[in-house]
Amino acid sequence: MVVVMAPNATDEDIAAVVARVEEVGGEAFVSRGLVRTIIGLVGDIESFHHLNLRILRGVADVRRISDPYKLVSRQHHPDRSTVWVGEGDRAVPIGPETFTFIAGPCAVESHEQTYEAAVMARGAGATLLRGGAFKPRTSPYAFQGLGLAGLEILADVRATTGLPIVTEVVDARDVPVVAEHADMLQVGTRNMANFGLLQAVGEAGKPVLLKRGMTATVEEWLMAAEYIAQRGNLDVVLCERGIRTFEPSTRNTLDISAVPVVQATSHLPIIVDPSHAAGRKDLVVPLSRAAIAVGADGLIVDVHPRPETALCDGPQALVDSDLRELAQVVRRMPAVVGRKLATAATRVR
Amino acid sequence: MVVVMAPNATDEDIAAVVARVEEVGGEAFVSRGLVRTIIGLVGDIESFHHLNLRILRGVADVRRISDPYKLVSRQHHPDRSTVWVGEGDRAVPIGPETFTFIAGPCAVESHEQTYEAAVMARGAGATLLRGGAFKPRTSPYAFQGLGLAGLEILADVRATTGLPIVTEVVDARDVPVVAEHADMLQVGTRNMANFGLLQAVGEAGKPVLLKRGMTATVEEWLMAAEYIAQRGNLDVVLCERGIRTFEPSTRNTLDISAVPVVQATSHLPIIVDPSHAAGRKDLVVPLSRAAIAVGADGLIVDVHPRPETALCDGPQALVDSDLRELAQVVRRMPAVVGRKLATAATRVR
Amino acid sequence: MVVVMAPNATDEDIAAVVARVEEVGGEAFVSRGLVRTIIGLVGDIESFHHLNLRILRGVADVRRISDPYKLVSRQHHPDRSTVWVGEGDRAVPIGPETFTFIAGPCAVESHEQTYEAAVMARGAGATLLRGGAFKPRTSPYAFQGLGLAGLEILADVRATTGLPIVTEVVDARDVPVVAEHADMLQVGTRNMANFGLLQAVGEAGKPVLLKRGMTATVEEWLMAAEYIAQRGNLDVVLCERGIRTFEPSTRNTLDISAVPVVQATSHLPIIVDPSHAAGRKDLVVPLSRAAIAVGADGLIVDVHPRPETALCDGPQALVDSDLRELAQVVRRMPAVVGRKLATAATRVR
Amino acid sequence: MVVVMAPNATDEDIAAVVARVEEVGGEAFVSRGLVRTIIGLVGDIESFHHLNLRILRGVADVRRISDPYKLVSRQHHPDRSTVWVGEGDRAVPIGPETFTFIAGPCAVESHEQTYEAAVMARGAGATLLRGGAFKPRTSPYAFQGLGLAGLEILADVRATTGLPIVTEVVDARDVPVVAEHADMLQVGTRNMANFGLLQAVGEAGKPVLLKRGMTATVEEWLMAAEYIAQRGNLDVVLCERGIRTFEPSTRNTLDISAVPVVQATSHLPIIVDPSHAAGRKDLVVPLSRAAIAVGADGLIVDVHPRPETALCDGPQALVDSDLRELAQVVRRMPAVVGRKLATAATRVR
Repeated sequence: MVVVMAPNATDEDIAAVVARVEEVGGEAFVSRGLVRTIIGLVGDIESFHHLNLRILRGVADVRRISDPYKLVSRQHHPDRSTVWVGEGDRAVPIGPETFTFIAGPCAVESHEQTYEAAVMARGAGATLLRGGAFKPRTSPYAFQGLGLAGLEILADVRATTGLPIVTEVVDARDVPVVAEHADMLQVGTRNMANFGLLQAVGEAGKPVLLKRGMTATVEEWLMAAEYIAQRGNLDVVLCERGIRTFEPSTRNTLDISAVPVVQATSHLPIIVDPSHAAGRKDLVVPLSRAAIAVGADGLIVDVHPRPETALCDGPQALVDSDLRELAQVVRRMPAVVGRKLATAATRVR
Repeated sequence: MVVVMAPNATDEDIAAVVARVEEVGGEAFVSRGLVRTIIGLVGDIESFHHLNLRILRGVADVRRISDPYKLVSRQHHPDRSTVWVGEGDRAVPIGPETFTFIAGPCAVESHEQTYEAAVMARGAGATLLRGGAFKPRTSPYAFQGLGLAGLEILADVRATTGLPIVTEVVDARDVPVVAEHADMLQVGTRNMANFGLLQAVGEAGKPVLLKRGMTATVEEWLMAAEYIAQRGNLDVVLCERGIRTFEPSTRNTLDISAVPVVQATSHLPIIVDPSHAAGRKDLVVPLSRAAIAVGADGLIVDVHPRPETALCDGPQALVDSDLRELAQVVRRMPAVVGRKLATAATRVR
Repeated sequence: MVVVMAPNATDEDIAAVVARVEEVGGEAFVSRGLVRTIIGLVGDIESFHHLNLRILRGVADVRRISDPYKLVSRQHHPDRSTVWVGEGDRAVPIGPETFTFIAGPCAVESHEQTYEAAVMARGAGATLLRGGAFKPRTSPYAFQGLGLAGLEILADVRATTGLPIVTEVVDARDVPVVAEHADMLQVGTRNMANFGLLQAVGEAGKPVLLKRGMTATVEEWLMAAEYIAQRGNLDVVLCERGIRTFEPSTRNTLDISAVPVVQATSHLPIIVDPSHAAGRKDLVVPLSRAAIAVGADGLIVDVHPRPETALCDGPQALVDSDLRELAQVVRRMPAVVGRKLATAATRVR
Repeated sequence: MVVVMAPNATDEDIAAVVARVEEVGGEAFVSRGLVRTIIGLVGDIESFHHLNLRILRGVADVRRISDPYKLVSRQHHPDRSTVWVGEGDRAVPIGPETFTFIAGPCAVESHEQTYEAAVMARGAGATLLRGGAFKPRTSPYAFQGLGLAGLEILADVRATTGLPIVTEVVDARDVPVVAEHADMLQVGTRNMANFGLLQAVGEAGKPVLLKRGMTATVEEWLMAAEYIAQRGNLDVVLCERGIRTFEPSTRNTLDISAVPVVQATSHLPIIVDPSHAAGRKDLVVPLSRAAIAVGADGLIVDVHPRPETALCDGPQALVDSDLRELAQVVRRMPAVVGRKLATAATRVR
């Protein structure tokens, strides 16, 4: 941390800052300038926060320097991690050497719809199935998901198709039942800062897919991952799904730069969700190509056998020709950036 | 809802839209133009959503017209509401004829600190005490609040000072214990879209202070209030606390316009939190003046007997001369806009 | 400036930074920490910028500390300034002791409309007349203003009503002709970073009203004012007119906090434009109250004798009962914050 | 356009809207609903704007449906355009079948530096040279470019290297001299809404590179292009260069979705500037891969022979190994999306 003193700060003001820092065992290095004096602090950041130095007389600003996250940081864990999703032979990797394609319906509506969507997904190259049983909806009058019945459908479709399942959990009280049925627990964008839920999935013993809050900075997102990691679970995959900006032509603005930014600072894998970012199916294929090319570790997209009857986000779900085009893209493009499409057979742990 | 057809839509495309709308019992009015055709829908909006009209051939856009919220809307409830906080004779109103001043420490740290802050708050004209026992923090390494012990301190300070208490609940599992101790349950900015928590506080039988999500639109915020109302609780007070923008000189940007915007569309009371909006104590007094003048129904600010030792948000807490200045403002300015400072004695139900 | 070294920076890396700083006559103070080393720089900031220290081996970050603006900063000019608009006895002040009300039509459409609007404005307490002869419009097909004919109408209405005029200039080539007719030159939000125009108005010998760019930070805005000041013109009044955010219920989000933020860092006067911020006339009166209460030095609003025929921004123009309400507000509220309504008679230079 | 009436609108209110629309030669189609009535307008949009329908009694909202731009729209010009830059045999295309690589220094600093950068650029596959002689800078104390001397250096380097040049013009008064020296005129992000400049470049007889305003919507950007087109110049290439959001880890947020969004609505070519979007050279290569993959028509990047001495934006300029990596990317990746790298030899008009 760096303490910037005001131009009119006195020697006593400076001495008071130094004294306070030393009281908690820190060291303070004073750099006196013509106009301003700067004090560099070395020691335990957390103890400095409690000092509230910003409030002392003569202090103009206090700036943090080090990363505030530790377990998910690449500083102390330089190799990028691989997270395995699914049991035994069916486990599929998400990590730096592969490209993992996850697809499925936004919401589980029925056994038939889910099964059909899973077959579509698998046919297009997907090796993990997404599908929501618990849906967080802006309106209390919108379809909220099938709940437990939805989880059972997913488990059943997994048994038939062999695809491990990724599904969202929206309430800490539901974590045990979701963890019992799912292979990977998704924390959605609206819950990225629901710290009780983060802690609960951190203790559930299953890998977690953590979506970025729609207005979270990358740093806040990594802090949310730190909450999960701190409970002992490092099997966290990040998912960029668009941020909120002033631009109305897409539902959110896909922050494609977040992929290399995260990879430079954290060892966790990161995938991209073009369906929710754009909210328009005509953008899903070009954004998927961009995601592969920028170096994402995977992709998660909505597919639906009959988008026109979908209970949730129909306009962004792929079907027919769009899906065939995407299937070609995920089969051909990962090799261009030195990756292969992830499958259960990829396992070489 | 309005369906906008593409320029090249055929008569069959138009007929298909009309047929689908009529299938679910709606009416469709077709307006044919030289370039485009527009179809106005009348009937049950929810059933139209399930039709996914956007995906039909020839459809260029689908636009919603009516408010998506009902219970909190002023359309069907034109008189603005008053919410009473506190038991029996101690109850304090928040509503259109009064101006309610809420103050207290950001976090409950000890009995002594809470009691001192309460006395400061009461001395400055506050009639409700704020204070956090459960703190949602971006970092898992930051102080997370005293929990149950904090609630007991608050209840004790209420007994001594007579001030009803407002405190945050961050997890649906904690709602019963918080409701048992507090007079008003606060849902914080990070939990505005935690729908399970909204439903839980909707069933808790206590008034709710619902902070705006830091990147929520006014419409989404009112939808969150609708979640609470739908569980039978209309005693909801909204709190504008700043939104996230690109401007770095304040922690958030106080959206002062949200006060008259909300008052025009919802009957719920709305108050302003200048402390968390600005994150700087030098802005709290001017922003409080602006909040009163714009027509807010109340104000919630951080005070602390010793900000330099505060475990949370010390730089924004008022003390001494700032607080004396604010006390003058809340005593003199509400009359300028035709309101009186709310007290328990205001009761004339 | 502070240079933050990476954790793996070597002694040589540090020495290289120090050497470069000393080469240009600066001083470098090294603070070595357990994890990181920080180097504080003292000297001429501009020369440091050219060093591109960020690119040296081992450098993790470079942070600026001092204000980048000088002439408009309050650091070297602690008393807040007053700017006088108008010739001789007609001059009206904008500054810290008064509250100045500016009103008029968004665009000059005809002599009759401008005169009627001026009479409305004066009747409501305005002492300066606004009105656009050159209009920057998003669409090339929209009304672009009457140009020179509009300036002549304004000058004529000034002669009749006695109100000095404020009008926008959108092109550096038009500065001489606009300066010849107007009492104050307005630089609009779209031109805040049109540096050639800023320099031209800086040399025109008339006071300038500088609107904030709709996505400019306060610092960038003050830098734009510095461009004008640098050409010898310190008679600059800043105007907050709303910033672009994700909230759709208002055209822009009025950043009311910008008023005290600017007043804390710059000596220039600052006024508020609630009409363009909100884009809705129902918000103009409450936002005007907020502007006075927060401590703004003035207000600029749109009025129009027949808003339903306005060629520009009709929906936000005040008329009749709204304007009478605003007239009451500007007459009564400034006294609440210790100011009096500015008039030409205020002159006590 | 669609006029939405308020729930309490009377038959007279509705009739008044219809009458006004018919007065200007439009047609109004009334759709009466249980709660609301909607009126669809058909005819000349511009004439409707002047009606200010929003202000009539009983009108709740007015919504536009058609595109506001015409000349740059794909509606009336379905084939995507190709723009040629450079004279005679040296002309290089930017369009839907090729991928055009533009590189060069942010600012022209000297003949030697510009020549070296041009040789680097050409060696990496670039066929057009960028370089700024007039620099718009936030600070009046920053390097503002060499002006005319810079243009002469660029022309000289073109003569030696054969690369046509792209250079920025920041003031309408400079358009003739810049057009005389340059092959393509760049309008920068700060000037996207400088309408006088847009009109001036529209009349200059040279192709234009129009950067997106840092907070412009796609629609506003296309309206800016319409200003140029309206003056008779359809040789406009759009350049996405990042938008302003709350995320601090990159200077701006590259809106990669804007590429397919623009291509769906406009026939103009669109390229990407990853250097200015990110402001960090470590992101330039991954973002360039994403730009090619998403379907951009070209790329513009900063290169500099000695970034550590650059007078402008050194931290984002490529050199050595980064540039070699980018050279590989631009040579190999366009084929993956069915394009070839554009060269003068590509000419097959």
